[in-house]
Amino acid sequence: MRLKFTKMHGLGNDFVVIDAISQRVLLDEKRVRAIADRRFGVGCDQILLVEIPSSPDVDFRYRIFNADGSEVENCGNGARCFAKFVTDRKLTGRSSIRVETANGKMTLHLQNNGEVTVDMGIPVLNPEHIPFTAAEQATHYPLEHNGIQYTIGAVSMGNPHAVLTVGSTETAEVETIGAAIETHPRFPKRVNVGFMEVIHRGEINLRVFERGAGETLACGTGACAAVVAGCLQNLLDSNVKVNLPGGSLTIQWQGPDTPVLMTGPATTVYHGQIRL
Amino acid sequence: MRLKFTKMHGLGNDFVVIDAISQRVLLDEKRVRAIADRRFGVGCDQILLVEIPSSPDVDFRYRIFNADGSEVENCGNGARCFAKFVTDRKLTGRSSIRVETANGKMTLHLQNNGEVTVDMGIPVLNPEHIPFTAAEQATHYPLEHNGIQYTIGAVSMGNPHAVLTVGSTETAEVETIGAAIETHPRFPKRVNVGFMEVIHRGEINLRVFERGAGETLACGTGACAAVVAGCLQNLLDSNVKVNLPGGSLTIQWQGPDTPVLMTGPATTVYHGQIRL
Repeated sequence: MRLKFTKMHGLGNDFVVIDAISQRVLLDEKRVRAIADRRFGVGCDQILLVEIPSSPDVDFRYRIFNADGSEVENCGNGARCFAKFVTDRKLTGRSSIRVETANGKMTLHLQNNGEVTVDMGIPVLNPEHIPFTAAEQATHYPLEHNGIQYTIGAVSMGNPHAVLTVGSTETAEVETIGAAIETHPRFPKRVNVGFMEVIHRGEINLRVFERGAGETLACGTGACAAVVAGCLQNLLDSNVKVNLPGGSLTIQWQGPDTPVLMTGPATTVYHGQIRL
Repeated sequence: MRLKFTKMHGLGNDFVVIDAISQRVLLDEKRVRAIADRRFGVGCDQILLVEIPSSPDVDFRYRIFNADGSEVENCGNGARCFAKFVTDRKLTGRSSIRVETANGKMTLHLQNNGEVTVDMGIPVLNPEHIPFTAAEQATHYPLEHNGIQYTIGAVSMGNPHAVLTVGSTETAEVETIGAAIETHPRFPKRVNVGFMEVIHRGEINLRVFERGAGETLACGTGACAAVVAGCLQNLLDSNVKVNLPGGSLTIQWQGPDTPVLMTGPATTVYHGQIRL
């Protein structure tokens, strides 16, 4: 099988994007792992497969596979790359693209500057649905680990996030505290952990320890969760620039029961052809 | 500038190979770093540039650049990839290819099974030329570090190597002992450190701590140096299979003042096109 692909990244979160509409693609776990290997294969965090939708009210469907071969939920960085890919390859001419993913339908908007706005959905604040063990819903929660009391925000953006406010992201102990909170028993499905430094009400620095992966260059849902947590604690306004190690995103949120909008870049690195 | 390239690897040591004969290539340090970046670029250990030779008695010239942008000496894995590349792209029809590199001319031989034999040159055993501080040339040397006495072979294959014989490569403390010997004052230009487990006179396991890089999947000159050191100590015969973490090489050596022949695979992963 000869496969055409495009290598892309969203703030350093990198994808092998494959058009499975105009070519026949047969991927199994072994092939996904072979493609994702950075030395013996193409190398990427995830493989993004663009397909014909199963429902007529959307334009596309896409699936995302982790480097280990497992199929995973949607992520913001992947969504932006998807939108740029189908636009650049002229698979669509629309500036609003409806798409179906493993965790539901969503609409992507292409901005004039080439950035993409993703509706990341309404954040889930109910502890039971995050899931997070707490007596009742609150803007922030005490969380004890190893005798240390942390204060966290808890938000689900389809995946669970704990958000800590820190004095400086540079000195934050992301690996150790991240790993400790990730597996804290009050998060039964484990949790992503964000370390947020508020610069002012319209800008934060953020580092994210991702569940099962460790620190990453840019976690889209983590940026959303941090801004939601910061707004709930009245530290942030509704339009916030989020500086991540891989680059910056703009997050907009009008408050509870409204969706979070994430705007950011997607970059095409090169086009390739591989024989599998 | 639009650049066609081929991603290849030799036992996991991976290369972006660029034909600078049929396309115009302008590479500077910044572009090399951008291409070599594994998330924001193509990703590779080294970039291999195939050029027209400056001398009529060779078929090609090639240059190798490290991921940091610096131009480096030839390496065995790169040589095999080069030979497969010019053959597959029909830049030559010869099974013996004469080539000019940063450290001299050499001849590469394509085997019928697709593997490539590289003449790695005559090993340098004179301590002064390795360079290694020793009273006189010997088959092995005592080396003291932190109160521990090691026994090493010392060989230069264009780059200096210290070779330790260990009971098992699995349990060898490659990172700590490697780092200690790499910077030992008796190696004024530092040294690559090989950890060799002799299975029998025709087969060894080998792990190599590379100077400035740490442990790697497959060091071609390290495999040569290990077999030379093992032959000098009468542990090995003249034809040895060397099992490295990235795969296996066959090393042939007839003894002092004869060249070391290295035979191994080169793999094409995919073809790509990037805009710089």
